[in-house]
Amino acid sequence: MTAPDLNAPTTTRPRAAAHLDLRQDVALLTAALIDIYSVSGAEAELADAVEHALRTVPQLELVRDGDSIIARTNLGRAERVILAGHLDTVPLPTTEGSLGTVPSYWPSGAPGEGILYGRGATDMKGGVAVQLALAAGLFDGGAEPDKDVTFVFYDHEEVEAVKSGLGRLVRNHGSLLGGDFAILLEPTDGTVEGGCNGTIRFEATTVGEAAHSARAWMGSNAIHAAAPILARLAAYEPRTITVDGLDYRESLNAVKVNGGTAGNVIPDRCVVEINYRFAPDKTPDQAEQHVRDLLDGFDVVRTDSAAGARPGLNHPAAASFVAAVGAAPKPKYGWTDVARFSELGIPAVNFGPGDALLAHKDNEHVQADAVRECLRVLRSWLTA
Amino acid sequence: MTAPDLNAPTTTRPRAAAHLDLRQDVALLTAALIDIYSVSGAEAELADAVEHALRTVPQLELVRDGDSIIARTNLGRAERVILAGHLDTVPLPTTEGSLGTVPSYWPSGAPGEGILYGRGATDMKGGVAVQLALAAGLFDGGAEPDKDVTFVFYDHEEVEAVKSGLGRLVRNHGSLLGGDFAILLEPTDGTVEGGCNGTIRFEATTVGEAAHSARAWMGSNAIHAAAPILARLAAYEPRTITVDGLDYRESLNAVKVNGGTAGNVIPDRCVVEINYRFAPDKTPDQAEQHVRDLLDGFDVVRTDSAAGARPGLNHPAAASFVAAVGAAPKPKYGWTDVARFSELGIPAVNFGPGDALLAHKDNEHVQADAVRECLRVLRSWLTA
Repeated sequence: MTAPDLNAPTTTRPRAAAHLDLRQDVALLTAALIDIYSVSGAEAELADAVEHALRTVPQLELVRDGDSIIARTNLGRAERVILAGHLDTVPLPTTEGSLGTVPSYWPSGAPGEGILYGRGATDMKGGVAVQLALAAGLFDGGAEPDKDVTFVFYDHEEVEAVKSGLGRLVRNHGSLLGGDFAILLEPTDGTVEGGCNGTIRFEATTVGEAAHSARAWMGSNAIHAAAPILARLAAYEPRTITVDGLDYRESLNAVKVNGGTAGNVIPDRCVVEINYRFAPDKTPDQAEQHVRDLLDGFDVVRTDSAAGARPGLNHPAAASFVAAVGAAPKPKYGWTDVARFSELGIPAVNFGPGDALLAHKDNEHVQADAVRECLRVLRSWLTA
Repeated sequence: MTAPDLNAPTTTRPRAAAHLDLRQDVALLTAALIDIYSVSGAEAELADAVEHALRTVPQLELVRDGDSIIARTNLGRAERVILAGHLDTVPLPTTEGSLGTVPSYWPSGAPGEGILYGRGATDMKGGVAVQLALAAGLFDGGAEPDKDVTFVFYDHEEVEAVKSGLGRLVRNHGSLLGGDFAILLEPTDGTVEGGCNGTIRFEATTVGEAAHSARAWMGSNAIHAAAPILARLAAYEPRTITVDGLDYRESLNAVKVNGGTAGNVIPDRCVVEINYRFAPDKTPDQAEQHVRDLLDGFDVVRTDSAAGARPGLNHPAAASFVAAVGAAPKPKYGWTDVARFSELGIPAVNFGPGDALLAHKDNEHVQADAVRECLRVLRSWLTA
């Protein structure tokens, strides 16, 4: 008899998956998802529960990769839409009395009524609950959606991009991610937010010559030399750029500055870290050129960048979705995974329950009715 | 029999003081002093050796306080001069092959000839050797100095001002430190350097409002708000101010800048640390007002200051000393302990062997002849 190998990867050891009832009220399903801890890196239990529940829907083709799951209908429809959401959350609050924790909490005392608190309530277990409820109900009563649907649940969204479960799925299973239009169920308060700004970072460095500050004229002050960098950034007036009918507000900021070594030494180096959030009319290279032009004469090095995404709302599938939602779409300012779909040539928007400004907050919460309304809109659009 | 208490303060345990021959060539005496390790906080062995050697001069009244020593003649002369120097050095170099170490080293191969390397060669065991040689030889051959002399040897000069042995002597034995004129034997390359600039530090802080950098307009950028502080400092033209006939060159610099918390957050705080080295025509309060005027409109807080010292070269004792040295006196830019004498109302100058720019360097060294020349000048002035 061989002793169990406790050092084996957890996926090779049996786990009892929590049972998720996908047909319960979607707000209660949200609470059930909140109650399964899934901070980035610890998504296994939730991924198991999601996989286990989806296996009860025979019309779905399932692929599991790490703690990500792809579930697809194969109805031979003319159009395929992707509904995507991440399973992970940021860490639990450490402040005593915080409400954005595990387990979930209904201040009304009546589960399903009013506001639901808990880590992930906003970002984005409400959206994942809507995905799961849709997946379970697509074929109810003999109905069939008029589009093929690909559901994507993925891990590691809240951490470094290199760990992204969605990025891994693109690499390992790119052919399963094809489609005409993608909806990311990130919180948008129930409106459609199209595309996203790109983001690019730079370090602008000035170099001087160290000297004792009692004999400053023997050296050259790198912090003083950085004054024009800050002055140009402070004077810069960020633009608003219309792309595919949506207005993208840009911003360009020094986010860090650091110079000097000691209180009696003329500083020989000063580094200004700059973040430019640019409209999706530009590539990262064009955004870089814009900043280089502004900081002409200074040593500027690009340290990081991610392309933006055009909203693509003129695509028929996108247009029909916007019409189904009814409200005017808005631009998305923050970078989101819609940009990954955009890179694959798939127009993508954000549409989900909850207020994005509550994401990662200690009082993270979502209205039960907002989750229900999101489900209603998507279900009626998919089966129109 | 009682076992020795190894935890007792070292001063209560017997130490065998190293023997110092004060009548040997003063450059060789410098080497002997270098060979006794005396980094700040570990001056005891050197202080013991100095005390032991000075006790052989019966005309000197000795007071020991910690690792500082005051040795005074009491000849009833009309004038009393103070010759002061510190026993401690900065730590030994950590770079392999450095020459500013213990023991001392004569590249000539002939001790006493040419250049002497070793920690403290410049700062300031050459000066201390001159003090000791003077003390030992003042009464040689029945001669007597025409001024009363107070020799001061003190600990903890190279560290925080609050630990200063000279400061402690002023508090504990102020009456023994009276005099008409003080010479600090810090390295000045054999010229008289009068007075010193004062130094004062500030923190200028800007406050903004944090926000995600994708929605910068929700916040306010504290680093951008600091741009005018750097611009005014960069544009400031430092002055040169003549005090008692010497030209004091000032400097005003940002020595550190720090702002921002993360690459995607609009910074809500930026702190610029500023150092103003001001001529001794001003008090620290006047220097503060000057900086406040320049940075009007900003939150400026004084964090540290030390008054400068006027050179006082119009005092008769100072004037006779300058005449004895022969060369034109210069201003001292760096803050030194002459300011402590200045606070006591005693005019003070720096005069010692070695190049101040070599102080604290890994290749610290002094010319044997520079030490001898310093001794010659002081001896002839004291016994004129």
